[in-house]
Amino acid sequence: MNVMQRSEFALINELKKIFQSAENVFLGPGDDCAVYRSGKSGKELITVDTILDGTHFDSNKHSPENIGYKAIASAVSDIYAMGGLPSVCVVSCILPQSISLEYVLEVARGMARAAELNAVPVVGGDVTTWNGQQAYSVTVTGYPILEEPIRRHTAQVGDTVFVTGSLGGSILGRHLNIASKRNFIIGLLEEVTPTSMIDISDGLLQDAAHLIENRDIGIEIIADKIPIDKDAATLGKTTGRNPIDHALGDGEDFELLFTVTPGEERKVELAKIDESIHLIGTIVDEPGIFIVSSGERKKVSPRGYDHFRQ
Amino acid sequence: MNVMQRSEFALINELKKIFQSAENVFLGPGDDCAVYRSGKSGKELITVDTILDGTHFDSNKHSPENIGYKAIASAVSDIYAMGGLPSVCVVSCILPQSISLEYVLEVARGMARAAELNAVPVVGGDVTTWNGQQAYSVTVTGYPILEEPIRRHTAQVGDTVFVTGSLGGSILGRHLNIASKRNFIIGLLEEVTPTSMIDISDGLLQDAAHLIENRDIGIEIIADKIPIDKDAATLGKTTGRNPIDHALGDGEDFELLFTVTPGEERKVELAKIDESIHLIGTIVDEPGIFIVSSGERKKVSPRGYDHFRQ
Repeated sequence: MNVMQRSEFALINELKKIFQSAENVFLGPGDDCAVYRSGKSGKELITVDTILDGTHFDSNKHSPENIGYKAIASAVSDIYAMGGLPSVCVVSCILPQSISLEYVLEVARGMARAAELNAVPVVGGDVTTWNGQQAYSVTVTGYPILEEPIRRHTAQVGDTVFVTGSLGGSILGRHLNIASKRNFIIGLLEEVTPTSMIDISDGLLQDAAHLIENRDIGIEIIADKIPIDKDAATLGKTTGRNPIDHALGDGEDFELLFTVTPGEERKVELAKIDESIHLIGTIVDEPGIFIVSSGERKKVSPRGYDHFRQ
Repeated sequence: MNVMQRSEFALINELKKIFQSAENVFLGPGDDCAVYRSGKSGKELITVDTILDGTHFDSNKHSPENIGYKAIASAVSDIYAMGGLPSVCVVSCILPQSISLEYVLEVARGMARAAELNAVPVVGGDVTTWNGQQAYSVTVTGYPILEEPIRRHTAQVGDTVFVTGSLGGSILGRHLNIASKRNFIIGLLEEVTPTSMIDISDGLLQDAAHLIENRDIGIEIIADKIPIDKDAATLGKTTGRNPIDHALGDGEDFELLFTVTPGEERKVELAKIDESIHLIGTIVDEPGIFIVSSGERKKVSPRGYDHFRQ
């Protein structure tokens, strides 16, 4: 059955069975708006993230469950990157007219899995169909864990730079199975207040460039300290590129890049977290991104680590 | 210049010039999330609405400014329908790869016009491009003006049914120029607390059906009281349908349908509002939608006023 052959009401009822409610939700799907309570009164966070068929996923290759999972998991990543926890999310599903109800419910199940892992109830959404491809747009609201959210443009010269997890080659599958950073951010902020933070969605170099964007500071990264994922090596075998190029340039890692005041590195080590954290560099007073490798220090373009090697 | 030939940073800077900030916004576009304060602590509203090229607008016919305006104005309508005021919104713009920067900025100007009329700052968004058509998904947050939001399923038997504005034929142009209901909802709620409310986006009959959905009540509408827009008559000349059919069935009116406790009709009249309000019927204890016309009372299907006439 085509998804739109059901009434909107029937579809919402099917979806309600899949999505769990939560304590902070007064009213879920089925009215003009959802009604919820944010985690704290005061400052609210909001972000939207969109994934497109053919760009961020491939409906010919990836399961609808995986696609739904990614739609929510990638959007909520921005909330953690502000030192926040998610409150609720709403999803916009843009679908081909021919899509089946079962396919949509599988997408919804993937969304529900990501929602549960991140403790972010799906409280509403809309489903529209057209003669185009699939796209999913997810808006997440949240609140800062500490008094203030952690911004991306607030690092100071001398700060130490950390990155979580491992980088590169996420296209081989990790980009679909984005791990929740919920426990990580709670554990980290119990020990230390980062001076800046950003999630790595465009690749380490590009997101490092965002940290120093429009400011008179730079970032120096020690090549040997970069946590290169084994996927970067696997991918390198087919691309012919060095694994570190993949670690520096590949997008969709969904790890966190953050800085702390010098002297607070020990607090990062003390944080009760499962993720690996890697000290990869320092904020410097010379504008630009610098990679230190084999005793050599070179300025690189956010898009150009290949340049550096040649 | 193609929109994606600029850096994201440059694009955001262009957009920042177009979108005004507001007192309740601590941090607008440019970080992982926007940061805002909701209007009241306590209950928050959230809704998402998506418009697609070829369905909700036609990029060959409609100006980018009009399209941007509609994207925001149609989404915020759901906040008013809950008796709420909007806090902030975020926009997801899905665009063809070939789209020009100037086109996108025109869309943004239309969004900014709707945002200003509704006092809802655009605090964030994302821009993605693909080899498909345009789509815009807008999420709006808000807060109830009164202690509680006004829901759609809470009318009681005996309540009086009102509708704002005029209905039918909005496709001739009104669907692009959705008037802000901000002052209306403020003025109405100063005088009276509706027992239920919904916005008319799917047509009067279908949205009337939503009011009584899954409940053991019905709605009786007096045909002569329905405010038929002159566009319904104009459209009827080309479709050959009766103007009242258009008023009952056409979507995208973006007017409000609401009920009040019997005896409170006078309060509705006293409300300091510019819009016309029309008393069109009553909530009854017999399930279904009934139209009373020329002394005849007939049950109709939400999709089937034509049936009734035949």
